[in-house]
Order: sequence, then structure tokens, then C-alpha cells
Amino acid sequence: MTGAEIMLATLRANGVSVCFANPGTTELDVVRAFDAAEDLRCVVGLQENVCTGAADGYGRMTGTPAATLLHLGPGFANGIANLHNARRARTPIVNIIGDHASWHLPYDAPLTSDIESLAAPVSGWVRRIDSVADIASATTEAVARTRMSGGQGTTLIFPADFQSARQDAAPLDSRTDDALLHPPVSAFDLESVARRLRAGSRIVFLLGGGGEGSGLSARSQRAVARLCAGLNASAYSETFPSRSERGRGLPAFDRLPYFPEPARHVLDPADVVVLVGALRPITYFGYEGHPSALVPDERLLTLSLPGENAAERLEALANALNAPAYAEPEAAFAPLAEGALTPAGIAGVLCSALPDQAIVSVEGGTCGYPFYAASSAAAAHTTLTNTGGAIGQGLPVAMGAAIACPDRPVVALLSDGSAQYTIQALWSLAHEGLNVVVLIAANHQYAILRNELRRNGAPLSERAEAMTSLDNPRIDWVRLAEGYGVRAARAATTDELTASLRDAFGRKGPTLIEMAL
Amino acid sequence: MTGAEIMLATLRANGVSVCFANPGTTELDVVRAFDAAEDLRCVVGLQENVCTGAADGYGRMTGTPAATLLHLGPGFANGIANLHNARRARTPIVNIIGDHASWHLPYDAPLTSDIESLAAPVSGWVRRIDSVADIASATTEAVARTRMSGGQGTTLIFPADFQSARQDAAPLDSRTDDALLHPPVSAFDLESVARRLRAGSRIVFLLGGGGEGSGLSARSQRAVARLCAGLNASAYSETFPSRSERGRGLPAFDRLPYFPEPARHVLDPADVVVLVGALRPITYFGYEGHPSALVPDERLLTLSLPGENAAERLEALANALNAPAYAEPEAAFAPLAEGALTPAGIAGVLCSALPDQAIVSVEGGTCGYPFYAASSAAAAHTTLTNTGGAIGQGLPVAMGAAIACPDRPVVALLSDGSAQYTIQALWSLAHEGLNVVVLIAANHQYAILRNELRRNGAPLSERAEAMTSLDNPRIDWVRLAEGYGVRAARAATTDELTASLRDAFGRKGPTLIEMAL
Repeated sequence: MTGAEIMLATLRANGVSVCFANPGTTELDVVRAFDAAEDLRCVVGLQENVCTGAADGYGRMTGTPAATLLHLGPGFANGIANLHNARRARTPIVNIIGDHASWHLPYDAPLTSDIESLAAPVSGWVRRIDSVADIASATTEAVARTRMSGGQGTTLIFPADFQSARQDAAPLDSRTDDALLHPPVSAFDLESVARRLRAGSRIVFLLGGGGEGSGLSARSQRAVARLCAGLNASAYSETFPSRSERGRGLPAFDRLPYFPEPARHVLDPADVVVLVGALRPITYFGYEGHPSALVPDERLLTLSLPGENAAERLEALANALNAPAYAEPEAAFAPLAEGALTPAGIAGVLCSALPDQAIVSVEGGTCGYPFYAASSAAAAHTTLTNTGGAIGQGLPVAMGAAIACPDRPVVALLSDGSAQYTIQALWSLAHEGLNVVVLIAANHQYAILRNELRRNGAPLSERAEAMTSLDNPRIDWVRLAEGYGVRAARAATTDELTASLRDAFGRKGPTLIEMAL
Repeated sequence: MTGAEIMLATLRANGVSVCFANPGTTELDVVRAFDAAEDLRCVVGLQENVCTGAADGYGRMTGTPAATLLHLGPGFANGIANLHNARRARTPIVNIIGDHASWHLPYDAPLTSDIESLAAPVSGWVRRIDSVADIASATTEAVARTRMSGGQGTTLIFPADFQSARQDAAPLDSRTDDALLHPPVSAFDLESVARRLRAGSRIVFLLGGGGEGSGLSARSQRAVARLCAGLNASAYSETFPSRSERGRGLPAFDRLPYFPEPARHVLDPADVVVLVGALRPITYFGYEGHPSALVPDERLLTLSLPGENAAERLEALANALNAPAYAEPEAAFAPLAEGALTPAGIAGVLCSALPDQAIVSVEGGTCGYPFYAASSAAAAHTTLTNTGGAIGQGLPVAMGAAIACPDRPVVALLSDGSAQYTIQALWSLAHEGLNVVVLIAANHQYAILRNELRRNGAPLSERAEAMTSLDNPRIDWVRLAEGYGVRAARAATTDELTASLRDAFGRKGPTLIEMAL
């Protein structure tokens, strides 16, 4: 076997079954090795941030790592932004970065760069392969380590000479440290937590996103609803959960507001803020006059850490506190506004059209907040948000989610500014025939920046308006999508959007709908 | 003045007049400061690699740095690939990266990351602003240091609180170390160089790209042609020059071939290889059976370092060696092939249609090599190539060159695979109304990878073919361009391309031509 074949076989043996790839010359032996790894799916992206974002979406939905295959430092660099988001989402990912042959590296050829320096900020663990004998154990460890810290990315740097070098018997059964397979679990003392909650007068639960058992899993949310009823407490989703269950049958917990004033309105009165797999709340940016840490340590109570199973603890707590049984809330749609589209109108239409078990990847504030506010009345669905603030995440994450869950319809609800950063993902949607409905909120501006610029009451200067405008020329999203082979339509009214959505959900493959705002 | 206003004023005072920007919330005080910096042009890109690539193109054409304005670590990361190319091109650039308020940074908010670790591999110098008083001197030094090492990028990390903080008198006259303004010049002993060349029996000159006085400036090339005639020597351009003058009136020096076999065919017989602002030749990748360093040190003779003025040395040398006067070569076009487009046919059409003083940004091998081979017969023009191998450079570099040289027509000659990485640049071309003709060689594959995969004679496997295919669906470049507001056409024959080019060069603003291959 070649070193590259050993790596792919080891990935498969450790449960990795998808690789998002944008290879170059230094990864060609890995490309060749795919011939002997038929059950390892390879999905090509036209730009690396598409690959890493898709791996993020895949990992969020499956809880198991996808691999990425990227071309030296510069190719990897193109994928860093979405690895930053994945790091904040605690998504397991194994990055494979090809590099020059080890004997060629000292000559500083044009594509040479300091890959370790680039990789460290977005990798929980980085390892440079330094022999063929090293490949199987390094790859096994890379997969195992994606479980650490509640989920993380790991990076293997794979010089070209070790990809092509041959070794007869691949030690695929290489052992992994038991500590890696069973990361430590935080302490939980039911009695003392129950005591503190009984003593609290105003309790807020803050629920962190993630997969099975996370604070925003269906099971945890139901237990939290019981606790809220029993303790007269309230609960919020963290502002940008990696993954949350939502819709009919679940409590209508809102997200913690983004801006500090409304967030403090929620948190300041609380004497206990219970962190259920959420990090302590920090303002998104530094805002003069507001503390960075929105809740002092002494008012925080950590029930579980991100990546841990919170559901059992919550249920035990609800039982210990004799909380009432879970009562499903009444879910009713607000009447649909007719006429020209507005963010609230879009939210209403989407919520009423959303198929059961859909996955909604949300990026951008214009429609993101109104959708979340309305979505408790929609059919049961899963929401994925931008966890790290690196724009260009929503489309690739939707792509990865569609590959992870081929039987679930996927929606990407995006702002036009955000969607541009990884627009090349449209081609992969078409190439793979993925069932993704891409909704573009086309207001032709960087609205979030204008909102921030206007925060202190100052009017927008002519120059600042120009620097935040996408209006000249207006991007024609229908042509753009069709250019990538994606079916597309434009909707300017509630009725048009309803019809376009019905059509899109009824077909195979991707559709893009430009929503005129 | 605010800190941000001080920075922009200092940039202006040091000769920076363009900023390529993709700002976010942590750069809003810089956005505000543009109100008081009317003569500092701000060009918005929809993705950061567009901004950094444009700064590279601008710097290559002007020799003076543009600024970039980027959003924390993840926004900067999106621009690293083209900063890698700029580093290899030795282009002066000043990157301004906004960051969280200094007092907010320790709280590890979602967008926090290790910016220094990301910036180091592509920055000759990195400085984090740590007070308002620091801004003017740090900015002055950042601009000055872009002259070092033959030209380099520098990076200022600018926390949001220092952007908004006020200081009354801005010390705009902050002094810069004299050593920074006058970098050291390499030693040159005319007599000993002349002696070694006289003693050589087979001499090859290797010419490095750059601006005025570089090995590939018109003046240097003419002097080298004299030396070649006098010494019976030959001369080659380095394979990927940052900038080279080319066309009628200049010698028809070829580029040093990319693959090791033909490169060695040129270099192995030489007993002296004269480096004229070029680095010693290294194979692009490590190839088994070929040395990384194509020429042993003892056969190298360094006439000038990259970034130095080689022209005077070359002329002195030609005179000392009594080389004959420069004789303009006869330039004749090969007859145009009729019918369906081929890479050679495209090269012929473009060379005959090229306006005088055009700038041609070349990326991708499919048309790049044939164009270069034919372009000595074209009207005098400037060629810019991909210096660092990070794909996605050609379109933004063309954009930056068009901003640097508004009176010169610009052509971007691109492969379809490469052009996708920074496709968002099309919008900026339309937004700024730049006179750029974008030529897309649409073969719907990653041809360079297929060439490399076939190098050892093996046929392409089905899987490898799929992983290097852009064929399903085929990108419709005309729709894509029109989606971004760029006029577009498709050409399948020599005649169609000739007509499309004539039309495109006759109009204001950008045009894209999809060339069917």
C-alpha cells in the first residue's frame, strides 16, 4: 500500500466516510488512493472554504468527523474561516493538508509556507507526518482527538513523499489511548444543584447547541421546560448554537439577544444563570458601557459543559425538584402578511412551508432573527447557525448537512452579503444533486454594518453608505445560480415566495430563490 | 482626531492612496474615518482574497503599497492566499486588521482568534497597536517596512478601542529610521563579474520580475540582449515573474520551463547561471529523480537581488564587455489558425488584438504558456503572473492593476478552475467600472492536475477523472458574469474571439469572454 492508501484505509477504519476535497499537485497520491477506497465518498469544492464549511455541517449533523483534503498552506488558508466557525461549533473534523516532499521543503519553493502557524489557531491538535510508519497511528489519533474538548478539528500535514512511499502491511489496528476515546466528564452533584436552584428567585437557563443530549436537543429542551414551569424560571438558547432542535412539540425558547442592551434585559435580573452546555455569555463585540462578561461568575451555575450529555442531568434535576410533566405548547402561526416581502413575511412563509424534519442553515441577521422568532410554530426541524462569526458559513454548512442527511430537506436562509463569501458552493450543490433550497435575502447592503454604524444615533455618512452598499450593480442571483447549474427563481411577494417554495420542496436537487427586499 | 483618523491621515502622509476593504463591526471607526480622508480611495471587495489580490496587483504596478482593511482573524484568513502570492512577488502592502477592543479580547468572544499566528507566515513585520499614541509611528513604520527585503507585506492589528479613542495633535511627522528608507544594496564588483563571464563558455541569464530596473524591465532586458549577443549566451525569464515587460521592441526571452526535465535541458549545460534579480531556480514541486536546486551554488552568479535595480549593473557590464548595441528583434505573428479555439489559437488572437501598453494578468497553464510563447510579437505590454502558486490570484491582480493604471487596458487571461477561487472580484470590476477584459479558458477541468497525474504515463482512473472534472454541470460563465453585472460573451472560434475582443477593447468597463475549449 502507499502511504496515502494507508491513510484513507485508516480513516475508514475509524469511521470517516466522507472527504471534502480541493486537492492540488502535492495531494495527487491521495487522489490516486481514492481508487482503492471506494466507500470513502469524495466531494469536490471549487474553493477550500466550501470544503471546510461543508465538513462543519456534516460533523454537526452526524457527530462524526468528515475529512478535508487541502493543498499546502495557501489552500488550507482559504479554508481557515470556516474552520474557525467549526472550532466554535466544536465540530469534529480531520484536516489533511498535503505538503511538499520532506526533502524538498528546505528549498522554499513558491508554495512553501509555515503551515503549522496557519493551522494552530483552528486546530485542537496538529501533527506533521514524518514517516510512512507514522501514518496509521497519526491518523487514528487525529480521528480520536476530534472527540476532545467537546469536539474539535485536528490537522495532519502530509508531505508528498510519504504519500507515495510504500509499506507492505498497514497497521490498521493501531491502538488509541483510552483517555482519547473517553474524554473526562465534568462533575455534577444533583443535590447541590437542586439546592441552589430552589434558593434562586429568578433563574435563567442558557442552553448550548449540539447533537444528542446537548442543551438544545429535543430531550433537554423538554426537561428544561419542566424546570422552568417548576421553578418559574425562563430559558434561552445561546445566541449562535451550532445545532438546535426547534418547531412544533418543543418549547418556544427564544435566543439570547445579540446586542448587549436586550441581552442584559434578560440576564441582569437573574440571580442564577444555569449554563447547560453553553459558555458563559460574553458580548459579541466590546461595547463601551457594557461589561464583556454579561453575568458575573458568582451568578453562574454550570450544569454541563459543551459537548457533554446534559439531558440526563436535566431530567434527574426536574425529577428531584418535582417539576411538572412536560406540556407541549400551543403552536400557532401568525397570519401571513400579504404583498411585498419583508423579513417577518419571509419568516412566516418559510415556517408554514417548512417540511417536517427539515434542516435550516441560517446566516445573516436580516431574516435569521425573524425566522427564529417564528419557527417555534413550524414543523419540527433542526437549525444550524454561524457559531464563529466568520461570514460565508451558511451555504457550505447546508451542503454538508445535505450530504450527512440525504433524506432530510435542507434550507439555507442567507443574507446576500454573507452568501457571496462562499458562493462557489452552489456548483457543488448542483454537482452532487443535493436537496438544498437556498433562500437569498437580497437587500443589496451589508445591513449588519449599517445597524452597527447607526447604533449611537448618528446618521450614515455618504461614504459609509457607499462602503456598505451592494447596490451598484445589483447582483442578479437568478443568473448567478443558473451560471452554476442551479435552478433559480425570484420572489417579490408573499404569494410568489409561497409558490416558489412549494415548487422547490417538490423537486430533487438544489433551487435558489432570490427574495427581493 | 480619532485613532482611526490618525491612521488614515498617516497612511496618506506616507503615500498610500488606495485601500482595498472588506470591513466588519470591529473596523467601523476606520469606516467612519474615511469621511475625513476624502483623497484615500476605498475599494470594496465581496471577499477578502479579492482585496489582498487587488492590493498585490496595485503594488506590482505602482511600486507603492496599497492598504487592505480586513475583519479580525477570520476575515484576514480569507485573504492569506493572495498575500502568500504577494509575498512571493515582493509586493509592498500594508494590512490593517481590526480586532476586538483590547479590554474585550481576554473574554474569547466568538470572533477571537490568534491573529498573530495567522499573519506571521505572510507578513514581513506584524505589529499590534497598543495605544492611541502608538498609531502614527506604527503606521509610518508599517509603510516604510514594505520597502524591506525587496518589497514585503506588513500587518497592523488595530483594536477597536484605539480606533475610536481621541488624541488632539496627531504626530504625523513621526520620523522613520533611515535604514528603513534606504535598505542595503548588495555588493557588485564589475571587474570580477566581467571576468567570470568572459571565462564562461555557456552562460544563461535568469531574469527576475519586478518594477523599474528589475531583471525583466525593458531597460534590463535590452542590456541582457546585448550581453547575450556579446557572450553568445542565452536568457530566460524566471518561470513566474511578478511583473515583466514584453512585446515588440523587446527581446523574445522565453520563460524557464515549469517541469524539471525541460528546465534542466536549459540549465544543466550552463557553466554560469547569472541571477538578475531572480532567486536560484528550484523545482516547483519535489520530483523524484530531480534535484530541488536545479543549479549547484558554484555555478550561480548573483548579479542583483530581487527588488534591486539591475539595469545599471547590466548596462555597465555590457559596456565593460564591449557588447554590441541593442538590436530590436524582428517580430512576426504566426498566421492565425482558423476554426475552433485552441490554446495556441487563443494566444495568437489575443496577441494580435492586444492594445499597446496593455497589462495582462495570467493565471493557469492552459493558455498562459502559449500566450507567453506568442507574446513577444504583440504590442508592448506588461505581464503579471501567479508568483506563489495560490490559485485565485489572476482576477484580483487584474483588478488592482486597473486601479493602479486607469489609462491602460487590462486583460485577465485565466483558466476556469483558477478563476473560481476569487470569482467575487467580478462584482468589484463592475462596481468600479474598470477596463478589464476577462478571458476564461473554459475546458471544464483541473487540467494541471490531470497533466501531473499523467506524468508517469499512467492513464487517468475514473475516480481521478471525476475528482478533477468541472464538467457536471458546466459553469455558464456568461450568466455568471451577467449575474455580477459584467457584460459577457462566448466565443468558440478564432473569428468569434477576434470580434469579441475588438468589441471589448472598444468599450468602457469590464467584459468577460468565455472561450470554449
